[in-house]
Amino acid sequence: MPVFQETAHKERDLRINPTIEPPLPRLTPHPDLSDARDGIERHEVVVIGAGPAGMMCTLLLARYGLGDSLVCYDAKPGTLKAGQADGLQPRTLEVLKSLDIADEIINHGCHMSEVAFWNPKPKSSPQDPPAIERTSFAPDVVVAARYKHEVTIHQGRIERILENNLDQYASNVIRRSSRFVGFQLDEEGDAEFPVKFEIEQEGPDGTKTTRTGRTKYLVGADGAHSAVRRSMGLELAGETTDHIWGVLDFVADTNFPDVRKRSAIHSDAGSVMIIPRERIQSGEYLTRLYVQTVEEVDPSEDAGVNGFGSNGVKSKEKSKSRRAGITLESILEQAGRVFQPYEIKIKEGTEVDWWAAYQIGQRMTPKFSLQDSKGHDRVFIAGDACHTHSPKAGQGMNVSMMDSYNLAWKLTHQIHGLSPQTESPSVLSTYGFERTTIAKMLIEFDTQFSSMFSGKIDSDKSVEGLTHEQFLKVFSDGSGFTSGCGIEYPAGILVEPPSPGNGYPVTGDNYLHGTLKPGRRLLNSKVRRYADANLRDLQDDFISTGRFRVLAFTSLDLAQKEGRSAKSLTQVGQSILPSFPAGTVELVVLHPFPERRFEWVDIPGTVKKLAEMRFHGPIDDSLYPTYGVDPNEGALVVVRPDGYVGVISSLVDVAQVDSYLSKSLVKV
Amino acid sequence: MPVFQETAHKERDLRINPTIEPPLPRLTPHPDLSDARDGIERHEVVVIGAGPAGMMCTLLLARYGLGDSLVCYDAKPGTLKAGQADGLQPRTLEVLKSLDIADEIINHGCHMSEVAFWNPKPKSSPQDPPAIERTSFAPDVVVAARYKHEVTIHQGRIERILENNLDQYASNVIRRSSRFVGFQLDEEGDAEFPVKFEIEQEGPDGTKTTRTGRTKYLVGADGAHSAVRRSMGLELAGETTDHIWGVLDFVADTNFPDVRKRSAIHSDAGSVMIIPRERIQSGEYLTRLYVQTVEEVDPSEDAGVNGFGSNGVKSKEKSKSRRAGITLESILEQAGRVFQPYEIKIKEGTEVDWWAAYQIGQRMTPKFSLQDSKGHDRVFIAGDACHTHSPKAGQGMNVSMMDSYNLAWKLTHQIHGLSPQTESPSVLSTYGFERTTIAKMLIEFDTQFSSMFSGKIDSDKSVEGLTHEQFLKVFSDGSGFTSGCGIEYPAGILVEPPSPGNGYPVTGDNYLHGTLKPGRRLLNSKVRRYADANLRDLQDDFISTGRFRVLAFTSLDLAQKEGRSAKSLTQVGQSILPSFPAGTVELVVLHPFPERRFEWVDIPGTVKKLAEMRFHGPIDDSLYPTYGVDPNEGALVVVRPDGYVGVISSLVDVAQVDSYLSKSLVKV
Repeated sequence: MPVFQETAHKERDLRINPTIEPPLPRLTPHPDLSDARDGIERHEVVVIGAGPAGMMCTLLLARYGLGDSLVCYDAKPGTLKAGQADGLQPRTLEVLKSLDIADEIINHGCHMSEVAFWNPKPKSSPQDPPAIERTSFAPDVVVAARYKHEVTIHQGRIERILENNLDQYASNVIRRSSRFVGFQLDEEGDAEFPVKFEIEQEGPDGTKTTRTGRTKYLVGADGAHSAVRRSMGLELAGETTDHIWGVLDFVADTNFPDVRKRSAIHSDAGSVMIIPRERIQSGEYLTRLYVQTVEEVDPSEDAGVNGFGSNGVKSKEKSKSRRAGITLESILEQAGRVFQPYEIKIKEGTEVDWWAAYQIGQRMTPKFSLQDSKGHDRVFIAGDACHTHSPKAGQGMNVSMMDSYNLAWKLTHQIHGLSPQTESPSVLSTYGFERTTIAKMLIEFDTQFSSMFSGKIDSDKSVEGLTHEQFLKVFSDGSGFTSGCGIEYPAGILVEPPSPGNGYPVTGDNYLHGTLKPGRRLLNSKVRRYADANLRDLQDDFISTGRFRVLAFTSLDLAQKEGRSAKSLTQVGQSILPSFPAGTVELVVLHPFPERRFEWVDIPGTVKKLAEMRFHGPIDDSLYPTYGVDPNEGALVVVRPDGYVGVISSLVDVAQVDSYLSKSLVKV
Repeated sequence: MPVFQETAHKERDLRINPTIEPPLPRLTPHPDLSDARDGIERHEVVVIGAGPAGMMCTLLLARYGLGDSLVCYDAKPGTLKAGQADGLQPRTLEVLKSLDIADEIINHGCHMSEVAFWNPKPKSSPQDPPAIERTSFAPDVVVAARYKHEVTIHQGRIERILENNLDQYASNVIRRSSRFVGFQLDEEGDAEFPVKFEIEQEGPDGTKTTRTGRTKYLVGADGAHSAVRRSMGLELAGETTDHIWGVLDFVADTNFPDVRKRSAIHSDAGSVMIIPRERIQSGEYLTRLYVQTVEEVDPSEDAGVNGFGSNGVKSKEKSKSRRAGITLESILEQAGRVFQPYEIKIKEGTEVDWWAAYQIGQRMTPKFSLQDSKGHDRVFIAGDACHTHSPKAGQGMNVSMMDSYNLAWKLTHQIHGLSPQTESPSVLSTYGFERTTIAKMLIEFDTQFSSMFSGKIDSDKSVEGLTHEQFLKVFSDGSGFTSGCGIEYPAGILVEPPSPGNGYPVTGDNYLHGTLKPGRRLLNSKVRRYADANLRDLQDDFISTGRFRVLAFTSLDLAQKEGRSAKSLTQVGQSILPSFPAGTVELVVLHPFPERRFEWVDIPGTVKKLAEMRFHGPIDDSLYPTYGVDPNEGALVVVRPDGYVGVISSLVDVAQVDSYLSKSLVKV
């Protein structure tokens, strides 16, 4: 178009950049990090380990506002770690989406939508060769979730995506070739930066120098051999069970019909799990196989496993030799026996991407943090440093990243002065409380789930007394864990348990399909935004910026000046929200009308003023019922910064909302 | 998990990288680009201009395989251009998605789902002040499309996204501060690199040096003032109409209820169009207003407009003074009059992002390319260099990028030796043929559309004799253009017109809703992939890698050994595809069964061998009917590398497919 006059503001040039979310407000003074007084580097947070847990923690802290006072040390040199995990659960995908880093993973990862169950084929005569047959298909994700599938993709790729995003928020935060040596709490030396630690750095020429630093908080995400954990005096405790498995990533050449689906194969010769994987550069698709390699290791032999570090006990010879006998060839041979009558081999012209052997074990530390003399949490561990599971249910990388997701906002709120200092227990202390609870439940579930997968199903269709139908039931019942969507944090200062009857506005208990419950994540729904009629995902108003949100389900009398909704919204907007620091609590509003019924002037002004672009209606009749809310009554819900429901109150009981928020945030 | 044995292949490290699509195969020798013989730089393609058209062209050429023999010169220094366009049509979004660069745009752009129409409010007495009222809403996109909305976002951001993606495929290709001076065809000097051109480069110290280069092909995407066009001896021709408009990007403070929707406002005081825009860093949302600033300029005054370059004619004084009188204040004042009784102003504490004034004009060059002495296209123009439109229908950036999208694969096929040299006209020559056809249609449409928007609707609801209902009809009829989804390339060697009756397998004519037609793009559908039961988008098997695809709609007798489908697939797989260079034609297969009916062993082996991961079924009963295909008959469809249908044949008429492909590709 022919322009003859044009004027641009300089800010306009910024509009070309990727969207960056704003940091949390900071009420505390910015720290003096200079090393002038004693030559010692100082940080507000030091993260040890740049795997999924450590990288996620570092990224979140940087996004929330600590990018300038944060480092992450990793022992490995410049390259990214080529990890073993590969599965992302629906809940993890929701969280990655809330950080705007899910697209590459969803576009290019492998989606697992369906599981195939294969079992021994009944023989018509005893001379028949062993064979398997498909018993059934089942959906991989049976709970309500924004993404109805898991995604598998190389762990190193996820780490790279996290690091790429970190580059948008902070620079020079990841420091490699830097091995954590140990820490001590030295409150007398510097009360503000009481954690004194040592790092051994390796220069390009191989020379090693040890440096001392101080930090307010230390996060150990340094894996199963965690030096931070050791320095805390903690150990992983638990059982090493009796199943040894091989795992193999390769391009398969097979006539097995379900190679592109997650498949649980039980044969007379043992068990195999197929995990389909992403397309690689060659255009081919990877396949991961978990292959049970030996029938049994006597658990009384105290099978110590290389990899358990200080917890390992010297193995007995029998188990040791069994493990030593496992080779790529033996894994493939065993797979071949299980797959009969089908064939599976490495595609001609390709190389095996990776293979390994491992023994299933479930272990965890009794606590995830260490307190200073005042009882204030100073050192934390996250991820494999505090729990290890089998890979069967695809938990590892997910639970690890979710540890960090739970911790990072609490740590930032503490450092920024947003958490009340009068409360005991503190907001920050809920990290250990909440995540050990989840870890214990997961370890119990994983023990059951793993041994089930390791078990043998006879051609009469029972696994050690378990029928295929019972197996399916455990699989389905476990979906809350395996999807990550059923996680429920225990009651505490951040989770106020429901008090049904007392005006509590939610009915029903279909929590896996959306019924609101304190401690559970807010389910996504498709909604229609009022202002622009756009189809939106409700979770996109709950992105991970460290803010609390009040979600108002307004009632059918929304357009009545003296109605429940009008009163409630006015109080929330005029009294409650302004009493907390600006930018720490946002308002999101839903209305119950699928069709257009009102104009802006008909409803309380608070909505346009505080939530013009976060005000939505249903696209059909299911929105309020999904969450268990009666449109006649409405409801107020406080959603934590990590997307979990904190408290649910009657639309008119704004005092309960105020009370909950007052425990979670300082007042201004 | 405790691993005690682990072996990784070095290739595995590559799995962390973003997915890169493979280049097209090259049959011609790699060129000698050294300047040893005469000190002159040589390239296979030189693109002038790094705006949306030039950047898109450069990116595509690099992705298709020319990254090492390509440069793009832009006259501006290191910074990206802050452009004026802001609208992306559904079809453009589909294309960006096919390049895996749509996510940021879709996530962070503003979606326009609905249009609001406002008109003068009838007065109950002549003393009433002028006012407007909403007449109706309409969906912004009424045709079938993968994305049911337009997206608005700053043009500079799109350019940055294109350039970021280019970095994955080539380095040092964009050269800035490099002004194109001119070119000449010098076949005698170097028959292989006949286009001799001059570039004036400005160094960091401001010194200018002129360099001479040679290229096989030159693409001018250097905007409305194109120096390439001038060097070709071409001019933009067309009318300058009589409407002068102001345009304004700002954060609005308004009680106008539909400010977040595209709104067409006709008042007694003039017309305004609202284009809602993206959220910016502050968390606020931009609004664009197009404001008709003066009532009329007499077209007989030969209104020459600064910006039309060599085509401009000296203005008459009256029009000139009117344009000079347009200021930010006058635009805002005029907007205020139109919006009455609503108020609209700049939000306190914010600055206007950008404003400009322009006069609507529609012009184009008669041809888009220049031939050498053998009649072979050597120089091309794309985008604003060959056509300008009004911004009203949001065409500009879209048509420009689509010019490049049409050109780039043909140019690469030519250079890589994939296009038959015996055909006349050549594949490459269809660029000008196809895109001038589209440009002509668009200019006609835009003329009608713009004057309609500029027109005044009286309170009796007619615009210069047009009722509001007729206005709505033009708006709706224009949806094929405004969405980009109704574009139809004319019959030619790449578009074989349908021959109904002669076994032609498609019935119906609902082309805007999916009915297949040569020349139109293949509509997206949700499908269920057979191999892994994943929900997929059919268009994701037609990504922009420069390949042709044969899309087989198999028939209900798919599982019969001697059925139509089996015969067809076997011939396509065994005879046709192998006769073209490897990696130039892919097979995509659909089956008509919503439920699972067969195993791999029941259907032709060609499917698993050539299309294991590109073989899908319906998710309901609508798939085949959407495309106008009878499941009893099936169909074969060749889809061009740009996603447009080339030929449709009966499932059993594989000879027609062979004949079409033989005109488009060399045989091996």
